[in-house]
Amino acid sequence: MTVIDFKAFIGRLATASGETILPFFRTSLSIENKSSSDFDPVTEADRAAEAVMRRLIKSSFPQHGIVGEEFGNEREDADYVWVLDPIDGTKSFIAGFPIWGTLIALLHKGTPVFGMMHQPYIGERFSGDNGSAHYSGPSGERRLQVRRCATLKEATAYTTSPLLMNVADRACFTRIEHVAKLTRYGGDCYSYCMLAAGHLDLVVETELKPYDIAGLIPIITGAGGIVTTWDGKPAQRGGRIIAAGDPRVHEAAMKLLNA
Amino acid sequence: MTVIDFKAFIGRLATASGETILPFFRTSLSIENKSSSDFDPVTEADRAAEAVMRRLIKSSFPQHGIVGEEFGNEREDADYVWVLDPIDGTKSFIAGFPIWGTLIALLHKGTPVFGMMHQPYIGERFSGDNGSAHYSGPSGERRLQVRRCATLKEATAYTTSPLLMNVADRACFTRIEHVAKLTRYGGDCYSYCMLAAGHLDLVVETELKPYDIAGLIPIITGAGGIVTTWDGKPAQRGGRIIAAGDPRVHEAAMKLLNA
Repeated sequence: MTVIDFKAFIGRLATASGETILPFFRTSLSIENKSSSDFDPVTEADRAAEAVMRRLIKSSFPQHGIVGEEFGNEREDADYVWVLDPIDGTKSFIAGFPIWGTLIALLHKGTPVFGMMHQPYIGERFSGDNGSAHYSGPSGERRLQVRRCATLKEATAYTTSPLLMNVADRACFTRIEHVAKLTRYGGDCYSYCMLAAGHLDLVVETELKPYDIAGLIPIITGAGGIVTTWDGKPAQRGGRIIAAGDPRVHEAAMKLLNA
Repeated sequence: MTVIDFKAFIGRLATASGETILPFFRTSLSIENKSSSDFDPVTEADRAAEAVMRRLIKSSFPQHGIVGEEFGNEREDADYVWVLDPIDGTKSFIAGFPIWGTLIALLHKGTPVFGMMHQPYIGERFSGDNGSAHYSGPSGERRLQVRRCATLKEATAYTTSPLLMNVADRACFTRIEHVAKLTRYGGDCYSYCMLAAGHLDLVVETELKPYDIAGLIPIITGAGGIVTTWDGKPAQRGGRIIAAGDPRVHEAAMKLLNA
């Protein structure tokens, strides 16, 4: 069985997860009830969507492993392992901003071979298999391609929030901010997809979990970009991550972060 | 002619402006060409959309005034004046994030009587007439209603960026950040609409232009919220703005900002 066989299946996972999550987004279910702190709508949506995806995976591929935020790891030493994050960008979700996404990765012997980011409210999907990457959504379908950017000085950089970094890492990131043309905060999974689509040049983050990044790797590399840890290692275990559209920006950012 | 007569017309303005802007969003037209700095896609989209809306207004209501970012003011002492901001959130637009919006306000003798925020990529609209406010979009149609929040300590606060504030204002805003439950950055027009929809409690900004806020006022007040300048005056001229869903949070924020 080749990777291509899983493509339609990943689409099914995204559809099922989106249908499960949407009733919780911007509805009365999602309005925080300040008098009862027991009900956390984003956690409920997260759990329900992960459960739906796990059921689909288990019935179609009982031999596969699964890694997810809500229900832990199963058979994580299997040849094929699914890595699931039903809602990446929970703070945006809670505040009603439509820039969260469902991340789905398929790993083969530890390497992400297919990834998808699905935004069910907008109805857009970004997917990749390291060789190519694609968008489908309100404006149709198209291939994703990073843009060229010769130097860090010309780069637009993103991080979800410098407040998520520890003090030492934040000091390193500040050096990037001083050199880059523009730095913006926020974005979560959207920053990486917009990098793949050629709208920004650099994403730098820390303390990512494997499920925060695994599904994005085949999209970024499929669009011609590069994503590693700050010390140049494979990104799928998370931690401190640099993604760049142009290898020159990646190298410059890595040097500066490790200076 | 009563305000209600303008409702369908504002919808036409939003539709025409959206059709004009979308070809520039996330397309090759919008990918920054680093070798030629003459073409600025967001400015082109902004100008084209404002021109379309001005033509529609002039042909339907030649006696009305118009205030817009790109083409200045015409007849601004007329009884009815339209205030236009085709792309609020230009930095999000440039980076491909779908959280910018078209703001349209109708002022009657200086007071905003109808306002709309339109996001054409997602296909969602938030509108209000001070008496009520409504959403229409991917999840259907519904009335907007702010949520209750008794104290600033329980409030989720937004500002587009503290870096947009001058040093003195930023020091004032820091006092809010120290008290509020959660502070998040980014959002532009979306923050105010999510406040109207009951997903967050407070928005504090500075240096707004009239066209950044005029279209949002009838939505916020129509949903039961309150929006003023930091010193409690009407908000339609822009400047330093506080919007809150609950008057108790508005009062507490105003006190702290002016402390």
